[in-house]
Amino acid sequence: MKNRPKILITNDDGIFAPGIYALWRAMQEIGDVIVVAPDTEKSAVGHAITITDPIRVQKVHRENGFEGFAVKGTPADCVKIAGRSLMKSPPDIVVSGINSGANVGSNIIYSGTVSAATEGTILGIPSVAISLNSIKGGDMTTSQKVAVVVVNKILENGLPSGILLNVNVPNIPAESIKGYKITRQGKSVFKDRFEKREDPRGKFYYWMRGETINDTNSDTDGFAIQNDYVSITPIHYQLTEESFIKTLESWNFSGSTT
Amino acid sequence: MKNRPKILITNDDGIFAPGIYALWRAMQEIGDVIVVAPDTEKSAVGHAITITDPIRVQKVHRENGFEGFAVKGTPADCVKIAGRSLMKSPPDIVVSGINSGANVGSNIIYSGTVSAATEGTILGIPSVAISLNSIKGGDMTTSQKVAVVVVNKILENGLPSGILLNVNVPNIPAESIKGYKITRQGKSVFKDRFEKREDPRGKFYYWMRGETINDTNSDTDGFAIQNDYVSITPIHYQLTEESFIKTLESWNFSGSTT
Repeated sequence: MKNRPKILITNDDGIFAPGIYALWRAMQEIGDVIVVAPDTEKSAVGHAITITDPIRVQKVHRENGFEGFAVKGTPADCVKIAGRSLMKSPPDIVVSGINSGANVGSNIIYSGTVSAATEGTILGIPSVAISLNSIKGGDMTTSQKVAVVVVNKILENGLPSGILLNVNVPNIPAESIKGYKITRQGKSVFKDRFEKREDPRGKFYYWMRGETINDTNSDTDGFAIQNDYVSITPIHYQLTEESFIKTLESWNFSGSTT
Repeated sequence: MKNRPKILITNDDGIFAPGIYALWRAMQEIGDVIVVAPDTEKSAVGHAITITDPIRVQKVHRENGFEGFAVKGTPADCVKIAGRSLMKSPPDIVVSGINSGANVGSNIIYSGTVSAATEGTILGIPSVAISLNSIKGGDMTTSQKVAVVVVNKILENGLPSGILLNVNVPNIPAESIKGYKITRQGKSVFKDRFEKREDPRGKFYYWMRGETINDTNSDTDGFAIQNDYVSITPIHYQLTEESFIKTLESWNFSGSTT
């Protein structure tokens, strides 16, 4: 690795969120940072990309010299357009975050933060998503330290093709962290329900709300952060369920008409 | 299985697309059909859900008695709100499609069609996504026959928890189909690039475009449809990369400060 790696940072809370600023500060000590992030909040956009609208890109500036490209698009768009168009050569690493709110269990499939890192992996760039277990934002200091540790480890060791890291940080001071746990994606789910309301013109609309049901297995991402550990999960986007191939073959589709 | 199963159909091309109408017609012969689909096209929204906006639902009517709920939201929203709020009891199966355009290889992570079926699986309902390999729509007759075959097989055999089927149909007449192949998600990718344009006010914007690079392995989804087979891939949303857990543990994070 050359002395100053090129670090692309993005997120799904938008370029004006506290988390990406904290990440930008933390990454300064490791390399040259380029920021390409959505212009507004894009939480729970999953792995969306923008194909039916033009994508606009604007330079923005924030405090202390923070500058970056604000993209009218999704987190995955940001990584694509950065890697393919805005940067002269691909970055050495994609770091997505610091997200306000954990991305663990089944919920990671809705996560724009994780999808940005997935997109980096698809482009062949080592990538990591970092989330803080607090939807209110909270103190970013612990996450900043974790980001530095994890990014340095990745730059040192590399990541195999098709694998990214999903990192979740408990919302506690760094000195209270019990350590790092390599975990599996748990089965915690967001148990949603819809609240029906009537607008002033007598029309109905719904809000989605609900609560997370935690997975209590000790090797899972959700359990780790509930118990004051930093969670690191290696994930992929190869979705084939190998165990079911044989069974499906026995369903005898070839005997069907058509 | 009772005589008339309850079939929830949805899609990502929107409730006024030809594909969902064709699916609605085909499903009539199997069960009682309820349609809950996005009010407009939501292609490539991935597994997005709507959490920062209210969700509106409106009844719509089309030709020949087609009626359904148009949702101002994503395909995943449609399945959630149908299962949680619009239907008195959950459906026996979720069928998503018929999508205009194949959903194979790496591209399935961007697919709203597949995400709707994934959401059904998360809610504990057997689910299937059906896509036709033609972005122009094309003749839906073959896909309709395939949908009937596959849905009947699922109703007959059930699907294990956490597994859904991703079905892709070649754009050829039914009599030219060579058969059904149980496949794996291939590595075909959409090789994207961004076209920069200037708007009439002198501002720049980008269009994403590109072409699909096919996977030529004979056990893959993309290869099957290129070779006149219906492709059926069992997929899951458990993203842990088990093979990398041991390596990550050897990275010795616990020796890091923080």
